[in-house]
Amino acid sequence: MYKQSYFPNVDSIKYLGPTSLKSTLGFQYYNPDELVGGKKMRDQLKFAVAFWHTFDQQLVDPFGDGTAQRPYSEFTGMDLAKARVEAAFEFFDKLGVDYFCFHDRDIAPEGDTLRETNKNLDEILDMITDYQKTSGKKVLWNTANMFTNPRFVAGAASSPFADVFAYAAAQVKKGLETAKRVGASNYVFWGGREGYESLLNTDMKREQDHLGQFFNLAADYAKEIGFDGQLLLEPKPKEPMTHQYDFDAATTINFMKTYGLAGTYKLNLEGNHANLAGHSYQHEIRTAREAGLLGSLDANQGDELIGWDIDEFPSNLYETTLAMYEVLKNGGPHKGGLNFDAKPRRSSFEAEDMFYSHIVGMDSFAAGLRVAQKLIDDHVFEDVIADRYASYESGVGATIENGTATFQSLEAEVIDKPQSDLIAATHSGHLEQLKDTLNHYIIQTLK
Amino acid sequence: MYKQSYFPNVDSIKYLGPTSLKSTLGFQYYNPDELVGGKKMRDQLKFAVAFWHTFDQQLVDPFGDGTAQRPYSEFTGMDLAKARVEAAFEFFDKLGVDYFCFHDRDIAPEGDTLRETNKNLDEILDMITDYQKTSGKKVLWNTANMFTNPRFVAGAASSPFADVFAYAAAQVKKGLETAKRVGASNYVFWGGREGYESLLNTDMKREQDHLGQFFNLAADYAKEIGFDGQLLLEPKPKEPMTHQYDFDAATTINFMKTYGLAGTYKLNLEGNHANLAGHSYQHEIRTAREAGLLGSLDANQGDELIGWDIDEFPSNLYETTLAMYEVLKNGGPHKGGLNFDAKPRRSSFEAEDMFYSHIVGMDSFAAGLRVAQKLIDDHVFEDVIADRYASYESGVGATIENGTATFQSLEAEVIDKPQSDLIAATHSGHLEQLKDTLNHYIIQTLK
Amino acid sequence: MYKQSYFPNVDSIKYLGPTSLKSTLGFQYYNPDELVGGKKMRDQLKFAVAFWHTFDQQLVDPFGDGTAQRPYSEFTGMDLAKARVEAAFEFFDKLGVDYFCFHDRDIAPEGDTLRETNKNLDEILDMITDYQKTSGKKVLWNTANMFTNPRFVAGAASSPFADVFAYAAAQVKKGLETAKRVGASNYVFWGGREGYESLLNTDMKREQDHLGQFFNLAADYAKEIGFDGQLLLEPKPKEPMTHQYDFDAATTINFMKTYGLAGTYKLNLEGNHANLAGHSYQHEIRTAREAGLLGSLDANQGDELIGWDIDEFPSNLYETTLAMYEVLKNGGPHKGGLNFDAKPRRSSFEAEDMFYSHIVGMDSFAAGLRVAQKLIDDHVFEDVIADRYASYESGVGATIENGTATFQSLEAEVIDKPQSDLIAATHSGHLEQLKDTLNHYIIQTLK
Amino acid sequence: MYKQSYFPNVDSIKYLGPTSLKSTLGFQYYNPDELVGGKKMRDQLKFAVAFWHTFDQQLVDPFGDGTAQRPYSEFTGMDLAKARVEAAFEFFDKLGVDYFCFHDRDIAPEGDTLRETNKNLDEILDMITDYQKTSGKKVLWNTANMFTNPRFVAGAASSPFADVFAYAAAQVKKGLETAKRVGASNYVFWGGREGYESLLNTDMKREQDHLGQFFNLAADYAKEIGFDGQLLLEPKPKEPMTHQYDFDAATTINFMKTYGLAGTYKLNLEGNHANLAGHSYQHEIRTAREAGLLGSLDANQGDELIGWDIDEFPSNLYETTLAMYEVLKNGGPHKGGLNFDAKPRRSSFEAEDMFYSHIVGMDSFAAGLRVAQKLIDDHVFEDVIADRYASYESGVGATIENGTATFQSLEAEVIDKPQSDLIAATHSGHLEQLKDTLNHYIIQTLK
Repeated sequence: MYKQSYFPNVDSIKYLGPTSLKSTLGFQYYNPDELVGGKKMRDQLKFAVAFWHTFDQQLVDPFGDGTAQRPYSEFTGMDLAKARVEAAFEFFDKLGVDYFCFHDRDIAPEGDTLRETNKNLDEILDMITDYQKTSGKKVLWNTANMFTNPRFVAGAASSPFADVFAYAAAQVKKGLETAKRVGASNYVFWGGREGYESLLNTDMKREQDHLGQFFNLAADYAKEIGFDGQLLLEPKPKEPMTHQYDFDAATTINFMKTYGLAGTYKLNLEGNHANLAGHSYQHEIRTAREAGLLGSLDANQGDELIGWDIDEFPSNLYETTLAMYEVLKNGGPHKGGLNFDAKPRRSSFEAEDMFYSHIVGMDSFAAGLRVAQKLIDDHVFEDVIADRYASYESGVGATIENGTATFQSLEAEVIDKPQSDLIAATHSGHLEQLKDTLNHYIIQTLK
Repeated sequence: MYKQSYFPNVDSIKYLGPTSLKSTLGFQYYNPDELVGGKKMRDQLKFAVAFWHTFDQQLVDPFGDGTAQRPYSEFTGMDLAKARVEAAFEFFDKLGVDYFCFHDRDIAPEGDTLRETNKNLDEILDMITDYQKTSGKKVLWNTANMFTNPRFVAGAASSPFADVFAYAAAQVKKGLETAKRVGASNYVFWGGREGYESLLNTDMKREQDHLGQFFNLAADYAKEIGFDGQLLLEPKPKEPMTHQYDFDAATTINFMKTYGLAGTYKLNLEGNHANLAGHSYQHEIRTAREAGLLGSLDANQGDELIGWDIDEFPSNLYETTLAMYEVLKNGGPHKGGLNFDAKPRRSSFEAEDMFYSHIVGMDSFAAGLRVAQKLIDDHVFEDVIADRYASYESGVGATIENGTATFQSLEAEVIDKPQSDLIAATHSGHLEQLKDTLNHYIIQTLK
Repeated sequence: MYKQSYFPNVDSIKYLGPTSLKSTLGFQYYNPDELVGGKKMRDQLKFAVAFWHTFDQQLVDPFGDGTAQRPYSEFTGMDLAKARVEAAFEFFDKLGVDYFCFHDRDIAPEGDTLRETNKNLDEILDMITDYQKTSGKKVLWNTANMFTNPRFVAGAASSPFADVFAYAAAQVKKGLETAKRVGASNYVFWGGREGYESLLNTDMKREQDHLGQFFNLAADYAKEIGFDGQLLLEPKPKEPMTHQYDFDAATTINFMKTYGLAGTYKLNLEGNHANLAGHSYQHEIRTAREAGLLGSLDANQGDELIGWDIDEFPSNLYETTLAMYEVLKNGGPHKGGLNFDAKPRRSSFEAEDMFYSHIVGMDSFAAGLRVAQKLIDDHVFEDVIADRYASYESGVGATIENGTATFQSLEAEVIDKPQSDLIAATHSGHLEQLKDTLNHYIIQTLK
Repeated sequence: MYKQSYFPNVDSIKYLGPTSLKSTLGFQYYNPDELVGGKKMRDQLKFAVAFWHTFDQQLVDPFGDGTAQRPYSEFTGMDLAKARVEAAFEFFDKLGVDYFCFHDRDIAPEGDTLRETNKNLDEILDMITDYQKTSGKKVLWNTANMFTNPRFVAGAASSPFADVFAYAAAQVKKGLETAKRVGASNYVFWGGREGYESLLNTDMKREQDHLGQFFNLAADYAKEIGFDGQLLLEPKPKEPMTHQYDFDAATTINFMKTYGLAGTYKLNLEGNHANLAGHSYQHEIRTAREAGLLGSLDANQGDELIGWDIDEFPSNLYETTLAMYEVLKNGGPHKGGLNFDAKPRRSSFEAEDMFYSHIVGMDSFAAGLRVAQKLIDDHVFEDVIADRYASYESGVGATIENGTATFQSLEAEVIDKPQSDLIAATHSGHLEQLKDTLNHYIIQTLK
C-alpha cells in the first residue's frame, strides 16, 4: 500500500432513505438489497465505476489543463498506476458499487513496444485480480483505447494504414485475454476514430469492410480463447471524427447486419451519445431492445443545448425513469449494467466530488428504477398502448397482422367509406394527460 | 348564446391535492387561494389562456391539415367568432384561470379594409367586455397579428414597403386602444416577421431604424391615450424568418438601448424561444431580471432535439421550478403572469385535451412554485453563492468591488504569489451535489 | 384550354453559356444536348419539376398564409386542377425539363370517399397522359400523399388505427396503378407521419412491423400489375414527427434489411433531409451508393443553421459538385434523376420566380456535373485515395484484405515495433490542400 | 539560431495566378501588391498568422494526443520558445504575410510566479522585437491566455475568487505593455471562461459587474501607458463554458453599453463562433459594422453540422466573399485585419500542411476580396436594395423616415385601402435570382 487510505474523510456510503433535503454522503433511493421488481436493486442496476473518468481523468478540456485534485497525484509511472488501483478499490468499497470498467491504457502506461506495454498491463492486472478476490468486485466490461495515441490519427481498424490495423488487432487480442482473465461480463468497442474527417480523402466502403472484418476476427478470437462475455459496440455519431461509422443504434445494427455480426455482437448505449445523434436516450435503448440487441448502458447525461460530449453524471429523473423502464421491459440488465461514463464538472475538482457525483448518479437511477417498476406494475403505458392499437386485434386489423390482407382486400374495406368514418376511426393520443401522469408517478412513488 | 354549453362533459376543475397517480380533471398542486411565499398561488402564477392556441388553432402543421375537434366548428365568420368567445369564457370559468391573452385577428375576422376589420373587432370586443364584467376575467395582454397576412411577407414595421409600415402602425394603434378598453395589464409585440430571409437583399440598418421608430411611436401613442399597462417585446431567434431582430433577451435589450426603449419597454420571455436561441429558459429570465426588464412569461416548453417551435404545454418540473425561482427573486410577477403559449399535440385533438393540457401546465408550474419557494426559504442557492463569492467581501476583493483597485494595485497583490497559492484560492463548485439537492427538493417538497 | 398562355411573358429558356454576370432567363451551364462524361447533360441530370412545390404550393409557412401569385388562381376545384395541368406542361416546355413528379393529391382534389377521389384522379390522369403523348414529358416518379389529411394524424401504414392502414394500402394501390399508367420510372414513399410523436404512447415495434408488411404488400402489388419502375424509400429524420422511422439512409437500409426489402427497394435522397439528420448530402448519397441502393435524388438545399425543412432551390456549387460526383461514380442516374423538391422563398412570390428558381437549381447542378466529371477525368480524389490506402495492397495489408490474417498473425507483425515505426506508418491526409484543389476545379472548370 | 532553416524544403510562396488545377506552394488569387478597390491586396486583407495554432498547437483533441510533426520538437522550455520564434519568422517570411498574433503564454512558458513568468516573456519579446526590426513583420494583435491554467477554472475577471481577478488584471497589465512594446494594432480579449457552467451556483450579475469593471480598468491602463491600438472583445457563445457572456455580437454590444465600453472597445469576430451562436459569419460582421463597432476578423470556418469549435482554415468562397463585402463596405480593415485563428486538421500533421493550410485560407479570402469588389463596383446588392426600399424615399415612407409620421397620420393613410392595394405594395425579393447572380460573380470574376 502506498497510502493508508486515499479517502480518509469519507466513510462507507449508506442507504439513509429520503430523509434530508440536502445532498449528503448517503443514498436516499439506492438501497442495494431492497427488492424492486423481484430482484435486489444492486442486480437491477449493476452500477459500475468508469476507471478512466474517475481515476485517470484530470478534468482537462480543449481550452484548459487538468484541475482534478486527487490523493495519488504525487506518484508517476507504474507507481501512479498502482496507487490508482489501490485508491480505486477503496473507492468501490466505500461507494458500495459491485462493478467497474476500464480501458487497457487507463490502468497501465504504454511502453515503447506493445510487448512492453503488455508487460506493464499484466503487472497491474495481477494486482487487480488479487483485489478482486478479496473484495468481490467484478468487471462489467473492459475495452481498448484505440484513439488517443497518434498512431490512431485516422482510425484503428478503419485506418488507411495496414500496420495500424494490425496493431489494433494485437491490442484487442490482449484486451479479450484481459477480459477473460478478470472475468468481465462484456467486452466493449467504442470506435473513437472509426469514421472520417472528410469524404474527400476517404474510401468509406473499404474502411467499413476492414472494420467489419476486424469485428469478425475479434469474435473468432473471443470464441477461440473461451471468453463467454458479451461483445458490444457503442454508437456515437461524431466527435472526435466528423462522422463515426457507429453513428447511432440503427446505423450500427445496419452495420452489424452487413458484416454478419448481429448474432455475435450487441449494443452498449449512452445517453449523451444519443442526444448528439438527435435522439433521446430512451429512443436508442428502445431501438436496441426491439431488435433484441440491448447489451448494456453507459449511464450519463448530455445537455441538448450543447453540441459536444459532456458526460455529465445523470440527475434527470425523467431520463433515468424511462431508461430503467426499457431495461425492465427487457427483463432486466442480463449481462449488462449501468456504467457511469461520466465525470465531475471541471469545476468540481475536489476528491469529495468523486463521491457526490456518483451519489447523484446512483440515486437518480435508483429513483428511476423505483418509478419505472411502479409504472409497469400499474400497466400505465401498456394500457394506453393496448387501447390505442386495439383495432388490430380483430376485423381488418387482424387480417393485416396475420398476413391474409392484400392491397385488394384492404381497398375493398375502405373504398366507399366516407371521410367522417375514417376520422372517427382515429383517437386522441392524450399525450398531455400521460405526461401529467408521469409527473405524478415520479413524485408520489418517491415521496 | 349559440349553445347551452360547449363543454357539457367537463365540470369545474378543482384542487384535489396529490392524491392520485393518474391524471384526472383536477389539480394536484395548484390550489388557487393557498398562500405560497406570502401570496395566493393565483397571484404568484397569474395563469392566462392563449386565445389563439386554445380556440383558433386547428392543430395544423406544415405537412397536415387541422385535426382539432372543437364544439363550435359548425359556425363560420362572425358567428364562429362569437361562439368562440362564448366557449372561451366557459372554458376560463371551468378551468379556473383569471386571465387570457389574444391577438386582434384571433377574436374577429379581417374585412377588406382596416376600417371593416376594426368594425368586426369592436363588435367582438363589446361581447368580451360584457363577459369580463360578469365573470371577472382579466386580459393579461393583447397583441396584433402582423405576420399571417401576405402583406406582411417581408415584415411589418421592418417591411421594405412603407404602406405596410403604415398599416402596422394603424393596427397597433387599434391594438393599444383595445388594450385600454379591455384593461389589459400588458401589450405585447412579437415581431413574427421583423427580421430577414437573407442579407443579400436586406438593408438591416434601415429596417432596424424603422422598427425602433415604430416602437417609439407606439409608446408615444400608449401614453397619449393613457394606457398604463406594460409594453413588452418578445424575443425569438428565427422561424419564420432566417434571423429575427429580437433574437434573444440580450439582443433585444441591446436593440432597446439603441433606440431609447429600455425605460419604456420590458420583455416577455418564452421557454421554447429560449431553446431555439441556444439558451435555457432560466437563462433568458435571469438575463431580463438582472437588467430590470423582466415583464412577463410565456409558459411553454420546447424539445431541444427539435429545431422548430413546438409550443408544448409545460410539464418539466426542472424548468418550471427554475422559472418560478427567477419570478420569486424578481418579487413576483408584478404586472406580468404566465401565458400558456402552448397547444395540445396535433394528435391530442379532442376537446377534452384542451383541459388536460392546461392541467399539466398549471400543475407543473404550481409544483415549480412550491419547490422554488422552499428553495428560497432554505437559502439553498443563496448560501452556496454567498460562500462561493466570499472573497469579494474583504481584502483585495473588496477593493475590486468598491472601485479602489487599479491594475497596479492588483498586480502588486499577486506578482509574487506562487502557483499553488492561486490554485488554493479557487474552490469546487460542487455542482453534482447541488443537482442532487435539487432532486430532493422536487420530490420531498411535493410529496 | 382555360387560357391561351399562363406564362405569356416568358419564352423558352435557352442555353447561353457563361456570358453574363446577372442572372437572366437563360442557362449558363446547362446545355441539354452537350456531352459530359459520354452522355448528354439531360441524361446525366434528368431534371424533374415537383408538381406540389411548383403548382400547388401557395408559399404558406406555419406563421403565414400563402403569398404565391399564380396565373391560375382564379380557378377552383376540378377547374383549378385542370388549369394547373395546362400551366404545368407550358412550364415544362418553356423550362426545357424532361420529367416531373407528383403526389396523387397534388393533381386532383379529394372526394368524400376514395372511390370519388380516384374518379377525380383518373379524370386528370387522362389529361396528363394526353399531354405526355404530345409533349414527350416523362414522369420521374409519383407518390401518395399520406400525411396531410387528418386521418393520417398518427401515421398511415404505421397508424395505430387499422382502417387507416387499409386506406393507405388502397391509396398506394391506386398510386402504383397510376405509376404504371403514366410510365413513371420510379414510385416513391416518403413516410411523412410514419414515426412517433412520443414513445410514451407508441408501440414502435408493432408500428414498424406494420410498415414493413405494408412495403412488402406494395412490392407484391407492383409486381402483380407489372409495374417495372424502381420502388424508393425517402429518409427524413423528423418533422412533422418527433422521430421518423426512415431517419436517414443507414437507418432506412437497416429497416429494409429487417423486413426483407433491400432487394426490392432503393433510396431517394434529399439534401435538406440529410442536413436535418446531421449529415452532409454527399454522406447520404455515398452511404446508399456503397450499399448498392442509390435510387434517385431530391435536389434541394437546407440551411444548416435552421432546424426545419426549408426546401431551398440548390445554389451551392460545393454541394452540387459532390452530389454529382457520387452520381457519376454510380455510373449515372440509371432510372433515377434529380427532382427539385424545392420551392421559391415565400418572399419570391411572383410567377417569374418559378422560372428563376429552377434556373439557379438547374445551372448549379449542371455546373456541378461539369466540375465532377473533370475531377473524375483527372482522378483527383481517386489518386489521393489510392495513395492513402496503398499499404493494403501488399504485405500485412494484403493478408487483412484477403482474409488470411488472424489476430495472432497480426500481433506477431507489430508486437515489437517501436512507437516511432508506427507513427511513421501514418501519413498526412492533406485535407487543406485538397480543398484548395477543389476550389480551383470549381473556378477553372466553369470559367 | 538553433537551426539553419526550419522549413528547408519550402521556398517563398509566390503569386502564380489561376494557372493550375492542383493546389501547389503558390498563390492563385493573392497577389499582394495588386490593387483591388484602390488598395493593395495586402492592405485590404492584412493577413496574420496565429502563433498558437501554427507554432504551439500539437493538434490534440479531447480524445487524442498531439500528432503535429514540427521542426523544433526536439527542444523544450525556453529553448523551445526561442526556436519557435525563429521558425515563426522564417514561416512569416516564406509565406509572405505581414502580421501575426499571439497570446502571452504562446510565446513563453509560465514560471512559478507571475514575476518569473513575465521575465520569461520579456526575454522572448526582446527576441521578437529584434526580428520585427529586421523583417518588418507587425503584430496585428496580442492577447492574454486566461483560460488554460487551473486557476482560471471558474473564469478570470468573472471568477468568483478575487485573487484570480487580481491575477488576471496583472496579466492584462503586462499584456497591454507588451502590445505597446511590439506596436500591436489591437489588443484582444477572448473571454474563454468568462461565463458559467450552471446558473445554480452562479451570481451572473455580480460576475458581469466584475467583468465590466475589468474592461474599464484595462481601458484606463491602456490610456495611461499610451497604447493607441484598438481594444477588442471577441464573442463566442459557449465552449468551454455552457454559456459565455460574450455570446455573440449583439450580446457583447449590449454588455458594452451596460458598462460604458461602447466608445472604447470594438469587436473581433470569428466565423466559427458565429455559427456556434446560430448565425452566419456575415450576420455577425454586419451587426458590428452597422453599430460602428467592427474591429477585426478572425478568419476561419466552422462546420455547421458540428457543435463545437473546429477552427478550420477558410475555403468556402461564399463565406469569404460575403465577409470581404462587409469589410469593403466598412471602408476596409482600418486597424483590423484577418487573423487565421485556424489550425490544420489533426490528420494534416506534417510541417508542409502548415503552408498549404495558410495558402487555402489566403487564396480563399483573396478570391473573396476580388469577387466582393466586383459586386460593389457593379452595385449588385445596392441596386436591388435601393429598388426594394424605394417607397421610403417619398410620400408616406418619407414621413416615416423624417419623423413627421404619427400613428394617427399613418392610420389615415391606410384605413380604407383594400387588401389588394396592400398586397400590390409588396414586391418579390427575387432571392433565387440573386443567388444565381452571386454564383456568376464567383465564377466569372475569378476565371
